[in-house]
Amino acid sequence: MQFTSQIVEQAVDALSSFPGIGKRTALRLVMYLMNRPESEVAHLADSIIKLKTDLHLCSRCRTVSDQEQCDICSDSRRDNQLICVVEDFSDLMAIEATAQFKGIYHVLGGLISPMEGVGPSDLSIELLLERVAEEKPKEVILALSATVEGDTTMYYVAKKLQDFDVEVSNIARGISVGGELEYVDEITLGRSLLQRTQYTLS
Amino acid sequence: MQFTSQIVEQAVDALSSFPGIGKRTALRLVMYLMNRPESEVAHLADSIIKLKTDLHLCSRCRTVSDQEQCDICSDSRRDNQLICVVEDFSDLMAIEATAQFKGIYHVLGGLISPMEGVGPSDLSIELLLERVAEEKPKEVILALSATVEGDTTMYYVAKKLQDFDVEVSNIARGISVGGELEYVDEITLGRSLLQRTQYTLS
Repeated sequence: MQFTSQIVEQAVDALSSFPGIGKRTALRLVMYLMNRPESEVAHLADSIIKLKTDLHLCSRCRTVSDQEQCDICSDSRRDNQLICVVEDFSDLMAIEATAQFKGIYHVLGGLISPMEGVGPSDLSIELLLERVAEEKPKEVILALSATVEGDTTMYYVAKKLQDFDVEVSNIARGISVGGELEYVDEITLGRSLLQRTQYTLS
Repeated sequence: MQFTSQIVEQAVDALSSFPGIGKRTALRLVMYLMNRPESEVAHLADSIIKLKTDLHLCSRCRTVSDQEQCDICSDSRRDNQLICVVEDFSDLMAIEATAQFKGIYHVLGGLISPMEGVGPSDLSIELLLERVAEEKPKEVILALSATVEGDTTMYYVAKKLQDFDVEVSNIARGISVGGELEYVDEITLGRSLLQRTQYTLS
Protein backbone atom coordinates (compact mmCIF):
# COMPACT_ATOMS: atom_id res chain seq x y z
CA MET A 1 0.00 0.00 0.00
CA GLN A 2 1.20 3.46 -0.91
CA PHE A 3 0.11 6.33 1.29
CA THR A 4 0.14 10.05 0.64
CA SER A 5 0.34 10.58 4.39
CA GLN A 6 2.78 9.25 7.00
CA ILE A 7 0.19 9.87 9.70
CA VAL A 8 -2.35 7.67 7.96
CA GLU A 9 0.29 5.04 7.28
CA GLN A 10 1.33 4.96 10.94
CA ALA A 11 -2.27 4.62 12.11
CA VAL A 12 -2.92 1.81 9.62
CA ASP A 13 0.26 0.02 10.75
CA ALA A 14 -0.71 0.38 14.41
CA LEU A 15 -4.29 -0.84 13.90
CA SER A 16 -3.25 -3.74 11.68
CA SER A 17 -1.10 -5.08 14.52
CA PHE A 18 -4.36 -6.24 16.11
CA PRO A 19 -5.07 -9.97 15.68
CA GLY A 20 -7.46 -10.57 12.79
CA ILE A 21 -7.17 -7.04 11.39
CA GLY A 22 -5.31 -6.71 8.11
CA LYS A 23 -4.13 -3.62 6.27
CA ARG A 24 -7.37 -3.19 4.35
CA THR A 25 -9.59 -3.37 7.42
CA ALA A 26 -7.19 -1.05 9.25
CA LEU A 27 -7.46 1.48 6.41
CA ARG A 28 -11.26 1.27 6.61
CA LEU A 29 -11.08 1.95 10.36
CA VAL A 30 -8.71 4.87 9.79
CA MET A 31 -11.05 6.35 7.16
CA TYR A 32 -13.89 5.99 9.65
CA LEU A 33 -11.92 7.70 12.42
CA MET A 34 -10.94 10.59 10.15
CA ASN A 35 -14.63 11.37 9.73
CA ARG A 36 -15.52 11.25 13.43
CA PRO A 37 -15.49 14.29 15.71
CA GLU A 38 -12.21 14.92 17.52
CA SER A 39 -13.80 14.39 20.96
CA GLU A 40 -14.88 10.87 20.02
CA VAL A 41 -11.45 9.94 18.67
CA ALA A 42 -9.78 11.42 21.76
CA HIS A 43 -12.10 9.34 23.93
CA LEU A 44 -11.14 6.17 22.05
CA ALA A 45 -7.42 6.92 22.37
CA ASP A 46 -7.89 7.67 26.06
CA SER A 47 -9.82 4.42 26.71
CA ILE A 48 -7.05 2.45 25.06
CA ILE A 49 -4.22 4.01 27.01
CA LYS A 50 -6.13 3.62 30.29
CA LEU A 51 -6.06 -0.15 29.75
CA LYS A 52 -2.36 0.00 30.52
CA THR A 53 -2.17 2.86 33.00
CA ASP A 54 -5.26 2.49 35.20
CA LEU A 55 -6.07 -1.20 35.16
CA HIS A 56 -5.17 -3.50 38.07
CA LEU A 57 -5.37 -7.21 38.68
CA CYS A 58 -7.55 -8.04 41.69
CA SER A 59 -5.19 -8.94 44.54
CA ARG A 60 -7.38 -11.89 45.46
CA CYS A 61 -8.62 -13.51 42.24
CA ARG A 62 -6.38 -11.88 39.59
CA THR A 63 -9.18 -10.71 37.34
CA VAL A 64 -8.88 -7.24 35.80
CA SER A 65 -10.30 -4.60 38.06
CA ASP A 66 -10.44 -0.84 38.57
CA GLN A 67 -9.73 -1.17 42.29
CA GLU A 68 -7.31 -3.21 44.34
CA GLN A 69 -10.03 -5.85 44.82
CA CYS A 70 -12.60 -6.60 42.09
CA ASP A 71 -16.38 -6.11 42.34
CA ILE A 72 -17.04 -9.84 42.57
CA CYS A 73 -14.56 -10.45 45.39
CA SER A 74 -15.91 -7.41 47.28
CA ASP A 75 -19.53 -8.51 46.85
CA SER A 76 -20.77 -9.94 50.17
CA ARG A 77 -23.65 -11.75 48.41
CA ARG A 78 -21.27 -14.05 46.52
CA ASP A 79 -20.62 -17.51 47.97
CA ASN A 80 -17.02 -17.56 49.22
CA GLN A 81 -17.18 -21.34 49.64
CA LEU A 82 -17.10 -21.84 45.88
CA ILE A 83 -14.07 -20.88 43.78
CA CYS A 84 -14.33 -21.21 40.01
CA VAL A 85 -10.94 -21.43 38.28
CA VAL A 86 -10.88 -19.90 34.77
CA GLU A 87 -8.23 -19.22 32.17
CA ASP A 88 -8.83 -15.52 31.67
CA PHE A 89 -11.12 -12.55 32.00
CA SER A 90 -13.24 -13.37 28.94
CA ASP A 91 -14.00 -16.86 30.28
CA LEU A 92 -15.02 -15.27 33.58
CA MET A 93 -17.36 -12.95 31.68
CA ALA A 94 -18.80 -15.89 29.72
CA ILE A 95 -19.64 -17.66 32.99
CA GLU A 96 -21.07 -14.48 34.55
CA ALA A 97 -23.30 -14.12 31.49
CA THR A 98 -24.93 -17.48 32.28
CA ALA A 99 -26.12 -16.08 35.66
CA GLN A 100 -25.78 -19.65 36.97
CA PHE A 101 -22.79 -19.11 39.23
CA LYS A 102 -22.92 -17.26 42.53
CA GLY A 103 -19.48 -18.13 43.87
CA ILE A 104 -16.18 -16.32 43.34
CA TYR A 105 -13.40 -16.77 40.78
CA HIS A 106 -9.72 -17.40 40.37
CA VAL A 107 -8.16 -16.28 37.08
CA LEU A 108 -5.07 -18.27 36.08
CA GLY A 109 -3.95 -15.84 33.39
CA GLY A 110 -3.42 -18.59 30.82
CA LEU A 111 -3.02 -22.34 30.48
CA ILE A 112 0.04 -24.56 30.81
CA SER A 113 1.46 -24.91 27.31
CA PRO A 114 4.96 -26.27 26.79
CA MET A 115 4.63 -25.43 23.08
CA GLU A 116 4.24 -21.74 23.86
CA GLY A 117 6.67 -21.82 26.77
CA VAL A 118 4.01 -21.28 29.45
CA GLY A 119 4.77 -23.23 32.62
CA PRO A 120 2.88 -23.47 35.93
CA SER A 121 4.99 -20.69 37.44
CA ASP A 122 3.76 -18.26 34.76
CA LEU A 123 0.20 -18.70 36.01
CA SER A 124 -1.40 -17.70 39.31
CA ILE A 125 -1.54 -21.32 40.56
CA GLU A 126 0.61 -20.63 43.63
CA LEU A 127 -1.79 -17.84 44.61
CA LEU A 128 -4.73 -20.24 44.20
CA LEU A 129 -3.12 -22.71 46.60
CA GLU A 130 -2.50 -19.91 49.12
CA ARG A 131 -6.14 -18.88 48.80
CA VAL A 132 -7.38 -22.43 49.34
CA ALA A 133 -5.15 -22.77 52.42
CA GLU A 134 -6.32 -19.49 53.85
CA GLU A 135 -9.95 -19.12 52.72
CA LYS A 136 -10.76 -22.84 53.16
CA PRO A 137 -13.45 -23.05 50.43
CA LYS A 138 -15.72 -26.08 50.18
CA GLU A 139 -15.22 -26.63 46.47
CA VAL A 140 -12.95 -25.60 43.61
CA ILE A 141 -14.56 -25.84 40.15
CA LEU A 142 -12.15 -26.15 37.26
CA ALA A 143 -13.80 -24.39 34.29
CA LEU A 144 -11.12 -24.69 31.63
CA SER A 145 -11.29 -25.21 27.88
CA ALA A 146 -11.62 -28.78 26.61
CA THR A 147 -8.24 -28.64 24.87
CA VAL A 148 -4.90 -30.35 25.45
CA GLU A 149 -3.69 -27.23 27.31
CA GLY A 150 -6.89 -27.09 29.36
CA ASP A 151 -6.64 -30.76 30.29
CA THR A 152 -2.96 -30.45 31.21
CA THR A 153 -3.61 -27.44 33.42
CA MET A 154 -6.63 -29.11 35.02
CA TYR A 155 -4.57 -32.17 35.87
CA TYR A 156 -1.76 -30.07 37.31
CA VAL A 157 -4.05 -27.92 39.46
CA ALA A 158 -6.14 -30.90 40.65
CA LYS A 159 -2.96 -32.73 41.63
CA LYS A 160 -1.77 -29.73 43.66
CA LEU A 161 -5.18 -29.41 45.35
CA GLN A 162 -5.00 -33.02 46.61
CA ASP A 163 -3.01 -31.75 49.61
CA PHE A 164 -5.97 -29.68 50.77
CA ASP A 165 -9.31 -30.60 52.24
CA VAL A 166 -11.36 -29.31 49.31
CA GLU A 167 -13.64 -30.85 46.73
CA VAL A 168 -12.41 -30.46 43.15
CA SER A 169 -14.84 -30.65 40.23
CA ASN A 170 -14.78 -29.80 36.56
CA ILE A 171 -17.54 -28.50 34.35
CA ALA A 172 -19.59 -31.05 32.40
CA ARG A 173 -18.50 -31.89 28.88
CA GLY A 174 -20.98 -33.37 26.49
CA ILE A 175 -23.25 -32.51 23.63
CA SER A 176 -24.37 -28.88 23.35
CA VAL A 177 -27.90 -27.92 24.28
CA GLY A 178 -29.83 -28.00 21.01
CA GLY A 179 -27.10 -30.12 19.40
CA GLU A 180 -28.24 -32.84 17.02
CA LEU A 181 -26.62 -36.15 17.83
CA GLU A 182 -25.60 -37.07 14.30
CA TYR A 183 -23.50 -33.90 13.94
CA VAL A 184 -21.65 -34.21 17.25
CA ASP A 185 -18.00 -35.20 16.82
CA GLU A 186 -17.16 -38.72 17.97
CA ILE A 187 -14.82 -37.76 20.81
CA THR A 188 -17.41 -35.51 22.42
CA LEU A 189 -20.12 -38.11 21.89
CA GLY A 190 -17.97 -40.89 23.31
CA ARG A 191 -17.12 -38.81 26.36
CA SER A 192 -20.75 -37.83 26.89
CA LEU A 193 -21.61 -41.55 26.96
CA LEU A 194 -18.91 -42.34 29.50
CA GLN A 195 -19.87 -39.37 31.68
CA ARG A 196 -23.62 -39.99 31.51
CA THR A 197 -25.65 -38.77 34.47
CA GLN A 198 -28.70 -40.30 36.11
CA TYR A 199 -31.94 -39.14 34.55
CA THR A 200 -34.27 -37.68 37.15
CA LEU A 201 -37.98 -37.12 36.53
CA SER A 202 -38.77 -33.67 37.80
CA MET B 1 -22.01 -8.29 28.76
CA GLN B 2 -21.14 -7.83 32.42
CA PHE B 3 -17.74 -6.37 33.22
CA THR B 4 -15.78 -6.38 36.44
CA SER B 5 -14.02 -3.24 35.24
CA GLN B 6 -15.37 0.11 34.04
CA ILE B 7 -12.11 0.76 32.23
CA VAL B 8 -12.44 -2.44 30.22
CA GLU B 9 -16.11 -1.72 29.55
CA GLN B 10 -15.31 1.78 28.27
CA ALA B 11 -12.59 0.48 25.97
CA VAL B 12 -14.89 -2.25 24.62
CA ASP B 13 -17.65 0.31 24.02
CA ALA B 14 -15.25 2.67 22.25
CA LEU B 15 -13.77 -0.05 20.02
CA SER B 16 -17.17 -1.56 19.17
CA SER B 17 -18.23 1.82 17.74
CA PHE B 18 -16.06 0.92 14.73
CA PRO B 19 -18.00 -0.32 11.71
CA GLY B 20 -17.96 -4.12 11.53
CA ILE B 21 -16.60 -4.59 15.07
CA GLY B 22 -19.04 -6.02 17.60
CA LYS B 23 -18.74 -6.33 21.37
CA ARG B 24 -17.10 -9.74 21.22
CA THR B 25 -14.41 -8.70 18.76
CA ALA B 26 -13.87 -5.50 20.76
CA LEU B 27 -13.34 -7.55 23.91
CA ARG B 28 -10.81 -9.71 22.08
CA LEU B 29 -8.95 -6.58 20.97
CA VAL B 30 -9.03 -5.22 24.53
CA MET B 31 -7.65 -8.50 25.90
CA TYR B 32 -4.90 -8.30 23.29
CA LEU B 33 -4.04 -4.70 24.22
CA MET B 34 -3.92 -5.52 27.94
CA ASN B 35 -1.14 -7.97 27.20
CA ARG B 36 0.96 -5.61 25.07
CA PRO B 37 3.74 -3.38 26.42
CA GLU B 38 2.64 0.09 27.48
CA SER B 39 4.82 1.78 24.85
CA GLU B 40 3.06 -0.08 22.05
CA VAL B 41 -0.40 0.80 23.36
CA ALA B 42 0.65 4.43 23.81
CA HIS B 43 1.89 4.47 20.22
CA LEU B 44 -1.47 3.16 18.98
CA ALA B 45 -3.41 5.75 20.99
CA ASP B 46 -1.09 8.46 19.71
CA SER B 47 -1.45 7.39 16.05
CA ILE B 48 -5.22 7.49 16.41
CA ILE B 49 -5.39 10.95 17.94
CA LYS B 50 -2.96 12.32 15.34
CA LEU B 51 -5.50 11.45 12.65
CA LYS B 52 -7.61 14.30 13.98
CA THR B 53 -4.97 16.74 15.18
CA ASP B 54 -2.18 16.57 12.58
CA LEU B 55 -3.87 15.55 9.36
CA HIS B 56 -4.67 18.09 6.63
CA LEU B 57 -6.52 17.98 3.36
CA CYS B 58 -4.31 18.93 0.42
CA SER B 59 -5.26 22.49 -0.56
CA ARG B 60 -5.19 21.51 -4.24
CA CYS B 61 -6.66 18.01 -4.57
CA ARG B 62 -8.28 17.46 -1.14
CA THR B 63 -6.61 14.16 -0.39
CA VAL B 64 -5.37 13.58 3.14
CA SER B 65 -1.86 14.86 3.59
CA ASP B 66 0.71 15.67 6.27
CA GLN B 67 1.56 18.98 4.62
CA GLU B 68 -0.44 21.80 3.14
CA GLN B 69 -0.01 20.19 -0.31
CA CYS B 70 0.16 16.41 -0.76
CA ASP B 71 3.13 14.42 -2.09
CA ILE B 72 1.42 13.72 -5.42
CA CYS B 73 0.53 17.36 -6.11
CA SER B 74 4.06 18.44 -5.16
CA ASP B 75 5.69 15.79 -7.36
CA SER B 76 7.02 17.46 -10.50
CA ARG B 77 7.16 14.11 -12.34
CA ARG B 78 3.37 13.76 -12.29
CA ASP B 79 1.44 14.84 -15.39
CA ASN B 80 -0.53 17.97 -14.47
CA GLN B 81 -2.52 17.70 -17.71
CA LEU B 82 -4.45 14.72 -16.38
CA ILE B 83 -6.79 14.99 -13.38
CA CYS B 84 -8.36 11.81 -12.05
CA VAL B 85 -11.51 12.45 -9.99
CA VAL B 86 -12.08 9.92 -7.18
CA GLU B 87 -14.56 9.53 -4.34
CA ASP B 88 -12.12 9.26 -1.46
CA PHE B 89 -8.62 8.54 -0.25
CA SER B 90 -8.95 4.75 -0.40
CA ASP B 91 -10.00 4.90 -4.08
CA LEU B 92 -6.96 7.09 -4.74
CA MET B 93 -4.77 4.49 -3.05
CA ALA B 94 -6.36 1.71 -5.10
CA ILE B 95 -5.49 3.56 -8.32
CA GLU B 96 -1.97 4.35 -7.13
CA ALA B 97 -1.51 0.65 -6.41
CA THR B 98 -2.09 -0.16 -10.12
CA ALA B 99 0.97 1.98 -11.04
CA GLN B 100 -0.89 2.77 -14.31
CA PHE B 101 -1.66 6.41 -13.63
CA LYS B 102 0.90 9.19 -13.74
CA GLY B 103 -1.42 12.20 -13.54
CA ILE B 104 -2.78 13.99 -10.48
CA TYR B 105 -5.99 13.57 -8.50
CA HIS B 106 -9.03 15.36 -7.25
CA VAL B 107 -10.79 13.84 -4.21
CA LEU B 108 -14.51 14.64 -4.01
CA GLY B 109 -14.91 13.52 -0.41
CA GLY B 110 -17.99 11.45 -1.19
CA LEU B 111 -20.68 10.90 -3.82
CA ILE B 112 -23.96 12.71 -4.42
CA SER B 113 -26.59 10.74 -2.51
CA PRO B 114 -30.02 12.28 -1.87
CA MET B 115 -30.84 9.24 0.31
CA GLU B 116 -28.00 10.12 2.70
CA GLY B 117 -28.50 13.86 2.36
CA VAL B 118 -25.25 14.44 0.45
CA GLY B 119 -25.63 17.15 -2.19
CA PRO B 120 -23.10 18.60 -4.67
CA SER B 121 -22.24 21.43 -2.27
CA ASP B 122 -21.05 18.88 0.33
CA LEU B 123 -18.38 17.68 -2.09
CA SER B 124 -15.32 19.47 -3.49
CA ILE B 125 -16.91 19.89 -6.94
CA GLU B 126 -16.68 23.70 -6.90
CA LEU B 127 -12.95 23.41 -6.16
CA LEU B 128 -12.57 21.00 -9.10
CA LEU B 129 -14.18 23.54 -11.45
CA GLU B 130 -11.87 26.27 -10.13
CA ARG B 131 -8.90 23.99 -10.71
CA VAL B 132 -9.97 23.18 -14.27
CA ALA B 133 -10.44 26.91 -14.98
CA GLU B 134 -7.05 27.78 -13.56
CA GLU B 135 -4.83 24.78 -14.30
CA LYS B 136 -6.37 24.13 -17.76
CA PRO B 137 -5.78 20.34 -17.82
CA LYS B 138 -6.17 18.40 -21.05
CA GLU B 139 -8.38 15.67 -19.59
CA VAL B 140 -10.46 14.91 -16.54
CA ILE B 141 -10.95 11.18 -15.83
CA LEU B 142 -13.98 10.29 -13.74
CA ALA B 143 -13.01 7.19 -11.73
CA LEU B 144 -16.10 6.66 -9.63
CA SER B 145 -17.86 3.52 -8.42
CA ALA B 146 -20.34 1.85 -10.79
CA THR B 147 -23.26 2.53 -8.43
CA VAL B 148 -26.33 4.76 -8.64
CA GLU B 149 -24.51 7.37 -6.53
CA GLY B 150 -21.38 7.08 -8.67
CA ASP B 151 -23.39 7.46 -11.89
CA THR B 152 -25.33 10.46 -10.51
CA THR B 153 -22.14 12.19 -9.41
CA MET B 154 -20.45 11.44 -12.73
CA TYR B 155 -23.36 12.92 -14.64
CA TYR B 156 -23.40 16.04 -12.47
CA VAL B 157 -19.65 16.64 -12.72
CA ALA B 158 -19.55 15.94 -16.48
CA LYS B 159 -22.41 18.39 -17.00
CA LYS B 160 -20.55 21.09 -15.06
CA LEU B 161 -17.36 20.44 -17.02
CA GLN B 162 -19.14 21.06 -20.36
CA ASP B 163 -18.49 24.79 -19.85
CA PHE B 164 -14.74 24.22 -20.01
CA ASP B 165 -12.43 23.28 -22.83
CA VAL B 166 -11.45 19.89 -21.36
CA GLU B 167 -11.89 16.26 -22.36
CA VAL B 168 -13.98 14.23 -19.92
CA SER B 169 -13.64 10.46 -19.77
CA ASN B 170 -14.68 7.70 -17.43
CA ILE B 171 -12.92 4.47 -16.56
CA ALA B 172 -13.87 1.35 -18.55
CA ARG B 173 -16.56 -0.89 -17.16
CA GLY B 174 -16.76 -4.47 -18.30
CA ILE B 175 -15.86 -7.98 -17.26
CA SER B 176 -13.05 -8.38 -14.75
CA VAL B 177 -9.68 -9.63 -15.89
CA GLY B 178 -9.77 -13.38 -15.26
CA GLY B 179 -13.57 -13.32 -15.08
CA GLU B 180 -15.40 -16.23 -16.69
CA LEU B 181 -18.17 -15.07 -19.00
CA GLU B 182 -20.88 -17.37 -17.70
CA TYR B 183 -20.56 -15.99 -14.17
CA VAL B 184 -20.62 -12.29 -15.10
CA ASP B 185 -23.91 -10.58 -14.15
CA GLU B 186 -26.09 -9.62 -17.11
CA ILE B 187 -25.93 -5.85 -16.62
CA THR B 188 -22.14 -5.84 -16.66
CA LEU B 189 -22.05 -8.24 -19.60
CA GLY B 190 -24.62 -6.18 -21.54
CA ARG B 191 -22.68 -2.99 -20.92
CA SER B 192 -19.39 -4.61 -21.89
CA LEU B 193 -20.99 -5.56 -25.23
CA LEU B 194 -22.26 -2.03 -25.84
CA GLN B 195 -18.92 -0.50 -24.89
CA ARG B 196 -16.80 -2.96 -26.88
CA THR B 197 -13.45 -1.67 -28.09
CA GLN B 198 -11.58 -2.40 -31.29
CA TYR B 199 -9.31 -5.41 -31.04
CA THR B 200 -5.77 -4.58 -32.04
CA LEU B 201 -3.18 -7.19 -32.87
CA SER B 202 -0.01 -6.22 -31.08
